[in-house]
Amino acid sequence: MNSVRASAPQLADITPYDPKYLPARAYLSANENPCDVETEVRNEIKREINKVAFNRYPDPLANELRDMIAEANGLDRDCVLVGNGGDELLFDIALAWGGPGRKFLNMPPTFSVYQNNAELTNTEVVDIPRLADYTIDEEAVLSRVARGDIDYVIVTSPNNPTGDLADERFILRLLDATDALVMVDEAYFEFSRGTVRPYLAQHKNLVILRTFSKAFSLAGVRVGYLLGNPEVIREFLKVRQPYSVDAVSQAIARVVFRNRAKFERGIMQIVSERGRVFRELSQMPGITAYPSNANYILFRAEGAGEVWQQLYDRGILVRDFSRAPMLQDCLRVSIGSPEENDEFLAALREILPK
Amino acid sequence: MNSVRASAPQLADITPYDPKYLPARAYLSANENPCDVETEVRNEIKREINKVAFNRYPDPLANELRDMIAEANGLDRDCVLVGNGGDELLFDIALAWGGPGRKFLNMPPTFSVYQNNAELTNTEVVDIPRLADYTIDEEAVLSRVARGDIDYVIVTSPNNPTGDLADERFILRLLDATDALVMVDEAYFEFSRGTVRPYLAQHKNLVILRTFSKAFSLAGVRVGYLLGNPEVIREFLKVRQPYSVDAVSQAIARVVFRNRAKFERGIMQIVSERGRVFRELSQMPGITAYPSNANYILFRAEGAGEVWQQLYDRGILVRDFSRAPMLQDCLRVSIGSPEENDEFLAALREILPK
Repeated sequence: MNSVRASAPQLADITPYDPKYLPARAYLSANENPCDVETEVRNEIKREINKVAFNRYPDPLANELRDMIAEANGLDRDCVLVGNGGDELLFDIALAWGGPGRKFLNMPPTFSVYQNNAELTNTEVVDIPRLADYTIDEEAVLSRVARGDIDYVIVTSPNNPTGDLADERFILRLLDATDALVMVDEAYFEFSRGTVRPYLAQHKNLVILRTFSKAFSLAGVRVGYLLGNPEVIREFLKVRQPYSVDAVSQAIARVVFRNRAKFERGIMQIVSERGRVFRELSQMPGITAYPSNANYILFRAEGAGEVWQQLYDRGILVRDFSRAPMLQDCLRVSIGSPEENDEFLAALREILPK
Repeated sequence: MNSVRASAPQLADITPYDPKYLPARAYLSANENPCDVETEVRNEIKREINKVAFNRYPDPLANELRDMIAEANGLDRDCVLVGNGGDELLFDIALAWGGPGRKFLNMPPTFSVYQNNAELTNTEVVDIPRLADYTIDEEAVLSRVARGDIDYVIVTSPNNPTGDLADERFILRLLDATDALVMVDEAYFEFSRGTVRPYLAQHKNLVILRTFSKAFSLAGVRVGYLLGNPEVIREFLKVRQPYSVDAVSQAIARVVFRNRAKFERGIMQIVSERGRVFRELSQMPGITAYPSNANYILFRAEGAGEVWQQLYDRGILVRDFSRAPMLQDCLRVSIGSPEENDEFLAALREILPK
């Protein structure tokens, strides 16, 4: 036979995730850290990789790294799970707490992967859109979960792409209002220091997602982790790929985590540059910039699609959300090196109507 | 609230995959290559890793590696998909061609991950058990697919853990008898040279799975790939994790693939050692060894659980299938280095009743 039956019906309307990563001089589209791991740490990584037996399966649970993360967070090993980037763990929550007949509460605009994962797993998506200033519609969320049929919720804090932190009091009210699993996606928390980790002990339905991709310069290496209660982590173990985090990535992440104090300067510089870029953006006529607690800034500009193109023509790649729901005329710029930020700001001034 | 609602119902009976990897002197349980990548290739890998920007996201599709694999197989780029080990791609077939209301035809005893993946994705598993000698019950499979309700099939060739190749004529009859997607899992094909790749052009419903974990000594690095028709690959793109193969793993796999001729000697040695271990096993009283086309041998021994323990007490780890369905009293030994194989054979002689 030279034909194949159709794939599963929920795939019909799905297009593969496209990071829209194009060749550029300044990459300010993917919220990457502008600095690679520094030489001294990189040398330590080389020595650690030398010890890895490529021909042997990796430790499925990355226990050495897991113990380091657990200790730093004052938790036991069984409260931590390492994944192939935050992405794998985001898919796993849809597999484990979603599925046919189950419901995910989403607060768009937010990271689009949440909705894709729900669709792939036949999970119903219940949207509670954010308010006009992109803050969470707290009362609407609380009253929706009170109906009792939501199986999991993801609160992104800081939110991507809008940059705002979720209010801690709201998260606590949410945790009290439902037994749904509440994931707080703290992928960017190092740029804000806001974390709900202290509440893990009192809330079995809380699970926190973090990543090495942003503050720790390891987007290319793919390591993320969960902090949660052992009975929640155990369910993730059932759905995860047993060898998803390769032995070399484990080795690299161990060295970086051991040296995490060395990344503080870079984080501080991003935070300081974020303040500068925000102030300068806010002063440009026709631009609305949204305050950010992460390593990117969302801003609105009339004719954003054309602004994106003109920036790209000058070698600067930012992320175009102008055709995304609720993000009309919005672009997102990652905070790069001071020089890249200068270039971006100068180009934008040139492009905007005088 | 300090409670969390149950995870999805299909998880209730699932226990996390346990590779049963225990500390040992001779690791003969996981079908790993006994030799790590040789020094010269390893040095080339180091140079390649030096070029990787850890702070940038990896190429989602690993196009450089993809092109190398495509060229070596006389295919176009869009006929190849690289994954995080074969494991990710095995999960993806369940996501893309399985799901609620859909059916997977399985031929146990075989790789247990197929069934787990089906269960996780709410796919119905239709078992057509192998015959007593572990060959496929070909007529039963063909008559079952003729009913038209099977959505995907996995033919493992060589089969794990039994070692036998599927008959090529059977695979062709199967491809003609159904429009279900037929995956031929060729994870161990380098040890047998049996491949159905030539039939891709005529059969849109054929997809082939391969891995770098066995013949190419990269179990720790997690790289597998699919060969298939572009319209099949496109569906896998919809369900895969966009950044599942990290930049360092891509770099390592490129170097290894470029140097693949250097792995031939190791493959030949495993094939030759497999012959020797099989002959010696076959001569031991009370042992039934099954002929193998892979880098492991399944054998039956009375009181296999106790034999496993006594081997392990001597520092030799093999895989115990004695309590698995249809594999009563069976153990599987991976072909190790000549010294490890000697050790295993000597220990077994010592253990078996005289």
